[in-house]
Amino acid sequence: MLTPEENARLTRVGPGTPMGTLMRRYWQPALLSEELLEADGAPVRVRILGEDLVAFRDTNGDVGLIDAFCPHRRAPMFFGRNEECGLRCVYHGWKFDKNGTCVDMPSEPPDSLFKTKVRIRAYPTHEAGDMVWAYLGPPELQPPAPNYELLRAPRTHRHVSKTFENANWLQALEGGIDTSHSSFAHNNDIQNKRLLRNADTAPRLEVEKTSYGFRYAGIRSRDDEDYVRVYHYVMPAQQLRGGVTDWGGGKKDVPSLHGHVWVPIDDEHTWTFNWLYSYDPAIPISHDYAVDYEYHSGRGPDDYIPGTYRLKLNAENDYRIDRQLQRTKTFTGITGVNTQDFALQEGMGPICDRSNEHLGTSDRAIIAARQLLFEALDAVDRGEAPRGTDPSDYSNVRPVDLQIPRGRPWQTELERELIARF
Amino acid sequence: MLTPEENARLTRVGPGTPMGTLMRRYWQPALLSEELLEADGAPVRVRILGEDLVAFRDTNGDVGLIDAFCPHRRAPMFFGRNEECGLRCVYHGWKFDKNGTCVDMPSEPPDSLFKTKVRIRAYPTHEAGDMVWAYLGPPELQPPAPNYELLRAPRTHRHVSKTFENANWLQALEGGIDTSHSSFAHNNDIQNKRLLRNADTAPRLEVEKTSYGFRYAGIRSRDDEDYVRVYHYVMPAQQLRGGVTDWGGGKKDVPSLHGHVWVPIDDEHTWTFNWLYSYDPAIPISHDYAVDYEYHSGRGPDDYIPGTYRLKLNAENDYRIDRQLQRTKTFTGITGVNTQDFALQEGMGPICDRSNEHLGTSDRAIIAARQLLFEALDAVDRGEAPRGTDPSDYSNVRPVDLQIPRGRPWQTELERELIARF
Amino acid sequence: MLTPEENARLTRVGPGTPMGTLMRRYWQPALLSEELLEADGAPVRVRILGEDLVAFRDTNGDVGLIDAFCPHRRAPMFFGRNEECGLRCVYHGWKFDKNGTCVDMPSEPPDSLFKTKVRIRAYPTHEAGDMVWAYLGPPELQPPAPNYELLRAPRTHRHVSKTFENANWLQALEGGIDTSHSSFAHNNDIQNKRLLRNADTAPRLEVEKTSYGFRYAGIRSRDDEDYVRVYHYVMPAQQLRGGVTDWGGGKKDVPSLHGHVWVPIDDEHTWTFNWLYSYDPAIPISHDYAVDYEYHSGRGPDDYIPGTYRLKLNAENDYRIDRQLQRTKTFTGITGVNTQDFALQEGMGPICDRSNEHLGTSDRAIIAARQLLFEALDAVDRGEAPRGTDPSDYSNVRPVDLQIPRGRPWQTELERELIARF
Repeated sequence: MLTPEENARLTRVGPGTPMGTLMRRYWQPALLSEELLEADGAPVRVRILGEDLVAFRDTNGDVGLIDAFCPHRRAPMFFGRNEECGLRCVYHGWKFDKNGTCVDMPSEPPDSLFKTKVRIRAYPTHEAGDMVWAYLGPPELQPPAPNYELLRAPRTHRHVSKTFENANWLQALEGGIDTSHSSFAHNNDIQNKRLLRNADTAPRLEVEKTSYGFRYAGIRSRDDEDYVRVYHYVMPAQQLRGGVTDWGGGKKDVPSLHGHVWVPIDDEHTWTFNWLYSYDPAIPISHDYAVDYEYHSGRGPDDYIPGTYRLKLNAENDYRIDRQLQRTKTFTGITGVNTQDFALQEGMGPICDRSNEHLGTSDRAIIAARQLLFEALDAVDRGEAPRGTDPSDYSNVRPVDLQIPRGRPWQTELERELIARF
Repeated sequence: MLTPEENARLTRVGPGTPMGTLMRRYWQPALLSEELLEADGAPVRVRILGEDLVAFRDTNGDVGLIDAFCPHRRAPMFFGRNEECGLRCVYHGWKFDKNGTCVDMPSEPPDSLFKTKVRIRAYPTHEAGDMVWAYLGPPELQPPAPNYELLRAPRTHRHVSKTFENANWLQALEGGIDTSHSSFAHNNDIQNKRLLRNADTAPRLEVEKTSYGFRYAGIRSRDDEDYVRVYHYVMPAQQLRGGVTDWGGGKKDVPSLHGHVWVPIDDEHTWTFNWLYSYDPAIPISHDYAVDYEYHSGRGPDDYIPGTYRLKLNAENDYRIDRQLQRTKTFTGITGVNTQDFALQEGMGPICDRSNEHLGTSDRAIIAARQLLFEALDAVDRGEAPRGTDPSDYSNVRPVDLQIPRGRPWQTELERELIARF
Repeated sequence: MLTPEENARLTRVGPGTPMGTLMRRYWQPALLSEELLEADGAPVRVRILGEDLVAFRDTNGDVGLIDAFCPHRRAPMFFGRNEECGLRCVYHGWKFDKNGTCVDMPSEPPDSLFKTKVRIRAYPTHEAGDMVWAYLGPPELQPPAPNYELLRAPRTHRHVSKTFENANWLQALEGGIDTSHSSFAHNNDIQNKRLLRNADTAPRLEVEKTSYGFRYAGIRSRDDEDYVRVYHYVMPAQQLRGGVTDWGGGKKDVPSLHGHVWVPIDDEHTWTFNWLYSYDPAIPISHDYAVDYEYHSGRGPDDYIPGTYRLKLNAENDYRIDRQLQRTKTFTGITGVNTQDFALQEGMGPICDRSNEHLGTSDRAIIAARQLLFEALDAVDRGEAPRGTDPSDYSNVRPVDLQIPRGRPWQTELERELIARF
């Protein structure tokens, strides 16, 4: 349970808010590389952390991320002309490069110095892992570029996507790091009690705080084995988790790891960046495999409203819940893992009212994440660096999802599996 | 005229508001029985008095009415699974019965006592008259179940429907208890001056306060007869009125009574429950008669947007006003009695600005209803019971709509007609 | 740059606001005459200066402009019946004439005096120039009727239209009186450097304050000639400008003058009234010419959403920007002069945040207009008449758009051209 004040402190992300200030200490994916295919191509609207921005790929292939409004008269830069290493406002022709420098100001006399005094707000970007990352915080506190095994994996071994979520980022994060709901929300075969994750609905949970957040083990026991899922929570809003190995016929042989980065669009909307990669150098992620996996997740190519990153199954159509399916085969009656999560998370309302929640023992991860977030907010208040801004803290971790002999400590049993090798 | 403060006091109905508190002292229809046809069928969203709820018919056929959000993590109960006398949240499997008791909590260890400490908010329900009634007030003040002749009439003699109104409940109530507008808004034959209600546009009005609200007589005189319409205002927002006997060819022979219950969805939207019943045990209400009557009212089966209780004729299309019809045949140019009312009531805006109204002598009923509502608000403030919560006060009243010899007192002339016989 | 307080003072127009009070000192076009074709025809909704009104043409052909809500019970007068020199509310039949007098009150007894005590709010109107002008200010301060050469020009020589703009009125005005953006936003042939207005992107600007606002000259020089555009800013939100003579083949021979009146609908929406007239008595404006000109402007008959004054090209479809066209031929990639302006003005947001703007020397007109508006606000605060309310101040001015020998003073060179002759 959180007081309304605590809830606001955790959930609000606009400029100047406590969480907004904390979020701005980390690199965040701002958009997918695929959204800016062409040098000098059309600019793209970007809204993150409550700020309206425009991204453009310049003549050199670098990505600029600037204020959505021209500093002259606040005309929209989205309609700008992307030309010769800069984006030109088409109202009076002012042109800015990716660093925010005004490189042309034709409405002023040629000898005017006004041009040197005006800049457009611009944020540093870093393209890696098929994503464009951005840093929206104070320049003097900018951390080194993001570094995950995902970003080092060969492009052939990686798949990245993004999905619009119509809810506050914390609902998305809390849904992601909560493993116990998979026994219900993601149980796609109610009758099949043989599936361990279905049979044991109250797994033992262990949470170990780390320099980047925590690592978390959910342990379900049966007979002589423990099914252990270890994932990493990387602050402020990322999850690295082991690949689900049982989602469909003949797919088990791809040794994939998975995860999400949740990026607040604003207080009430979130980008969910989804990724997976194969950690076996010999086995790439084929296009077909990636598409199959996305369909399984409920976000295959045809699941999106064309031209958008929004899903066709959404609150307006009740995610096309099938009550007959719900009676006979799945708990939710909703198809697609991602869709099941969205139905539940978006259904809480734009910002979940946590003053009326009742957390139990299965909510240990959520409680731990909130503690870490509050600690980090306090650290920033004191002028200290929050946990997890240094990429070297998390760059070599890897999640895992495996069976081990019952009763053995997973920390040692899985030690080698928990280290990145790319 | 009301001050803005008075207007707010009368119109706002959310939890904790004065009128919201008063409204919660009465049983209110929450939905139609037809919305929950099947035991263990799909749950239904219910929003009344500004509260988001979910109704479900359980295995025994009883109706539960509970909070729309699970007390665990605030997941939406609408997506819940209705199974074995309870609704199961599909996020982590918590299950609640119709009383709000948590009957299963699979995400906690089997020996946990947490289950006994968590309840979901649940309201008592009472199914009668093809409606599900609910009581949202303090348990210790719960009145006996609602009791009207309508509810005692045989199902074969009764017809009930509901319609969404895009305006505050008080506009709906005030429109209903105002009889003088029928000479204009509902005059469907301007040229026909022979119709008494058309010819006499300023009826004499008499209002008599009662233990449940008031009874009201509108008297139009011509030649040697008085046309008397007596209706009852039952607090806080009901009207029982005599059947209109002149609405179409060959229908006069059904001795029907009519009425509405207006239930606030929230401050700016209202459910209008409509009912009629035959008070002659020998004459049931046929399906055809009911459908004809609904079409006459502007809410026949095809008048609704499919799958909703909203009308196709609404503010977005100006109720398809026909200006040629308005010039030649009716004052409004709008078809359907219900639609005429909605055009005028919704057209006042979401909450009518009563600081700019000018009430006349024809507004006696409206003034009386407001007085009663203010008295009831004051009573609740003093910790007393408001008028009309005891069903025995109104259970035997009946409205009437008849001609009597001119100048005779309607109270004695119609005495026997004003008493229920079912 | 304006502080947020200054910006609010200039932009907010509702009743009781400083700018709302100032705006109400001037006659404003409320609607087009074509919207009220017929005597006793259907009434029309009018919203200006944040007030909801209804206009109707009465039996005599005069236009009434009254409150959108009946003073009795606030029923919507839009559904009223327009009959025999008055608009009758169809709720209880109260009827008002164009002056706001209640001329019938059938719901009250015939001898009631209530009718004489109730009025509906009504504003004086004046029909001229195919527009219905209204005065919403204090009766004792009502200025003489508006008087422009436009209004005196024969109907055959005039063309008037209106367009909905989804932004605050000041963005529209500032866009209109800013001439330097035409080199970019309206440059429809980037490659053609021969066009003087394209070649010289930083014109010399001269602003001369007048009794009605200012007159403004933008001067672009090349070789031995100065291309001079003189327009008039008439307070509070009008522009009279010379005809563009180069917009298409064979059209140069029509000696037309052009302009706009911007009328706030409310704080976030604006009516743009557009006009042109031929100032040569021998050359009328043909229907074809007017239609061609409207299409060139981006508001031809088929450019509107049918039944509205809203454009099909709008923010929802990004004004159908064509990025290929933008790369090769125009700066904006957007078709239609009007559409180009709307994309840029609406793209600033509903009310432009002027605390983050950076005005340069090309913004002289904008700075001058704001100064005049602030002066007028101060004058009204002191109880004095603001500039430009007396039509005799501006009734004889005329704009011009011509070449003169280089270096000659335009004031004397164009003196005769700047005087109205109709």
